[in-house]
Amino acid sequence: MNYRAVVNVIGRIILLEAILMCFPIIVDLIYQESTWLSFLIPLACLAVMGTLMVCFVKPKETLLYAKEGFVITALAWVIMSLMGAIPFVISGVLPNYIEAFFEATAGFTTTGASVIEHTELIPHSLLFWRSFMHWVGGMGILVFVLALIPKQEGGSMHILRAESTGPNVGKIVSKMNLTARILYVTYAVLTVVFFIFLIAGRMPLFDAICNALSTAGTGGVILWDNSFAHYNSVYLEMVTAVFMFIFGINFNVFYLILIGKFSDVLKMEELRTYFIIVILATVLIALDIMTLYKNFGEALRYAFFQVTSIVSTTGYVSADFNAWPTFAKIILMMLMVTGACAGSTSGGLKISRIIILSKSSFTDMRKMLHPRQVIKTKLDGDILSESTIRNTKTYLVAYVGVIVMSLLLISFEGYGNVETNLTAVLACFNNIGVGFELVGPFANYAGYSDFSKLILSVIMLAGRLEIFPILLLFTPSTWRKV
Amino acid sequence: MNYRAVVNVIGRIILLEAILMCFPIIVDLIYQESTWLSFLIPLACLAVMGTLMVCFVKPKETLLYAKEGFVITALAWVIMSLMGAIPFVISGVLPNYIEAFFEATAGFTTTGASVIEHTELIPHSLLFWRSFMHWVGGMGILVFVLALIPKQEGGSMHILRAESTGPNVGKIVSKMNLTARILYVTYAVLTVVFFIFLIAGRMPLFDAICNALSTAGTGGVILWDNSFAHYNSVYLEMVTAVFMFIFGINFNVFYLILIGKFSDVLKMEELRTYFIIVILATVLIALDIMTLYKNFGEALRYAFFQVTSIVSTTGYVSADFNAWPTFAKIILMMLMVTGACAGSTSGGLKISRIIILSKSSFTDMRKMLHPRQVIKTKLDGDILSESTIRNTKTYLVAYVGVIVMSLLLISFEGYGNVETNLTAVLACFNNIGVGFELVGPFANYAGYSDFSKLILSVIMLAGRLEIFPILLLFTPSTWRKV
Repeated sequence: MNYRAVVNVIGRIILLEAILMCFPIIVDLIYQESTWLSFLIPLACLAVMGTLMVCFVKPKETLLYAKEGFVITALAWVIMSLMGAIPFVISGVLPNYIEAFFEATAGFTTTGASVIEHTELIPHSLLFWRSFMHWVGGMGILVFVLALIPKQEGGSMHILRAESTGPNVGKIVSKMNLTARILYVTYAVLTVVFFIFLIAGRMPLFDAICNALSTAGTGGVILWDNSFAHYNSVYLEMVTAVFMFIFGINFNVFYLILIGKFSDVLKMEELRTYFIIVILATVLIALDIMTLYKNFGEALRYAFFQVTSIVSTTGYVSADFNAWPTFAKIILMMLMVTGACAGSTSGGLKISRIIILSKSSFTDMRKMLHPRQVIKTKLDGDILSESTIRNTKTYLVAYVGVIVMSLLLISFEGYGNVETNLTAVLACFNNIGVGFELVGPFANYAGYSDFSKLILSVIMLAGRLEIFPILLLFTPSTWRKV
Repeated sequence: MNYRAVVNVIGRIILLEAILMCFPIIVDLIYQESTWLSFLIPLACLAVMGTLMVCFVKPKETLLYAKEGFVITALAWVIMSLMGAIPFVISGVLPNYIEAFFEATAGFTTTGASVIEHTELIPHSLLFWRSFMHWVGGMGILVFVLALIPKQEGGSMHILRAESTGPNVGKIVSKMNLTARILYVTYAVLTVVFFIFLIAGRMPLFDAICNALSTAGTGGVILWDNSFAHYNSVYLEMVTAVFMFIFGINFNVFYLILIGKFSDVLKMEELRTYFIIVILATVLIALDIMTLYKNFGEALRYAFFQVTSIVSTTGYVSADFNAWPTFAKIILMMLMVTGACAGSTSGGLKISRIIILSKSSFTDMRKMLHPRQVIKTKLDGDILSESTIRNTKTYLVAYVGVIVMSLLLISFEGYGNVETNLTAVLACFNNIGVGFELVGPFANYAGYSDFSKLILSVIMLAGRLEIFPILLLFTPSTWRKV
């Protein structure tokens, strides 16, 4: 392990977080709620720590291997969350540090789960901080650092791989930092466009800023106790639903559209499947909940909003889907697991993984029948490599393993029933935030013990970083000197 | 596809079922409940059909390939269940044929799920038939045929592979029919020993016969509405728990013990893990349910019985575990999925598969960190082949796929809540029979629609035959002439 290089990169990330904390201070100065000190204290600590780490721990060797890439990513996210929790504690909103850590982790991982009982009582600076964490965490903290640093080629690919979502990471352009910049510019432009749409729908300015930042990161910040139902506007719901859908699309698609490569976009099976899943799920749920609403149109409105919210792992709520029939709930549960496209800001397994898993399994079955035939699995017209297939299957095993273990651990205290605990795990692990029953719409995670909140925080991080980096932190051999 | 050979073998299986139906007729003659005609009519049909198929469709080529092996196995089980349902219809116990099919499938697949509301009203011949189906289905219908037929070497390995449980099938001895005979003799001897233990505990003769047959096949027949709680005897519960545990062990173990190869037995990781799982689950559940019972001893009694019942996928009930805390229920749910050892009469994923999945995933993760190192996955000291690992992972994908699809299908009608439907699927697919809530202890499947009952019947078969054979039946290319 190249400890010096790890410390140096982590130092830069800590400095970045110090800069990020300036924004909520500005918000506080506008709203005059005297919470600026809650941010200034951690900001000062971060600035000192970061400067020391960057200036005094110079790496002898800048090349980073896969292992360092994973470790940097995991540590960066853990430290960001640990520090991001401090304003909640100092401001007195969440005096219990573990609850504050839960809240900050739910922020950066874009889960949007909350332990705060009355959202309306939170100062604006902290509401903004929650949304801003979603935005930064959505595209990735380290991708952001990569976008800023002119050249740090050695190992940056490993970092991008560790932080990006999905089974395969393709560079858009050959240069790493350019790729990162293209991603962030696209991300920022889309956020601004969405913000304008919200303002056009007469959403209050502060709400529009927070919702735009949060939706872009597919976080789903809770600004009101009744979430998105607060606005009760068909226009705002539909615009948000469409943008939640958009932020679930692989960001490479936007770049490909920009440079006019439409044929490459049409070739993408994941994108097609994403469209089909959303349409199918919306129609099936609307048919199932029809009797609960005035007409089919209204059922369609709530179904479309909830489907895009869950599949993109945003987690906004516009209707009490706890009261929906089992069939609709089962479909929502499945969307919790699938997530949207790889390379988007969404969580979950990702649709491309599900495509790879199903296709390769059918290939394997055909091989069982015709042992001598050579049969290959293709995606988007290209043959999938054995290692991609193997890694995807391994990911499924790890994914199921994390769900099983964490379900067991949070059930120990005896708080929720099977449905509550299962969906709490799915909602946190897949970075959605909202589940069923006690963690359902308009509810929160306050009822769980500190131990369970910690477990749920860890799986939020595991979900956002796709398990391996976080698992590595708990592996003794990672820390052993070779 | 070698259609003639397929028809010929199916004919033999049909003849076997005709012979099997003689036994419930004998039971009826003893109890004088005039249900003998309910068995004699299908028996006559089977005898005629079977004779015609065996005598007039002689295969030109006796060699069977993998595909024929799978198809024969799947068809044999479907036909056995279709015919085994008829006595329920004619006797008037279940006039609805789909319900009768559910009951017969639950019989042969050793699921033991039931749609009959009042078990006490069923004639003895049908209670016996249910138990007897469990016994025959437990070790396998085709293994039985193989044991009887002196030589049919070509392709019999494919049949054994399609019908046996677990990721790998090893012949005990080089000759196929001898292997099958050893298995069945061991099976019969263990059944008789268990029967003697039951009689020693003063269980009524009829109950002892049915329970012995059913427990051996890990079916879990319901002779009384309150299942095993009816006997309310610590001795009978403990003896049954121990034997449920024993029938969850790989049958090769008994052969190895018989021929004195104890070191081979001690080397088996699956067996060790099985012991650990049962002990750990029992203790954890007992601690969790302690407050519900008089003392820790009583909690241990109910926990041990329920753990062995679920992990062996038998499905007997001695306590109302619907009322147990979530932690205990989550552990039971996990045991529903794991199942016991490969090569036993139990259902579920099988512990060896879980070992292979976890070990190979850890290997893959280490490979991600050290791409140049050669790391192999070992089981019982031997290196696992890539194809075994790949097939096991494919099995997991198919396993999850079946659960997701069937959960969606049975939820459509809106009968049960998420917990009911999820455990109904797990209980049927893993051949346990008992789930939580509306399909929980002392409950049954009568409330589901015919459509859902059919889906649940199909997944019982898919679970018993480990998915692929049943999936093949629904694949058009299987029936295409090459």
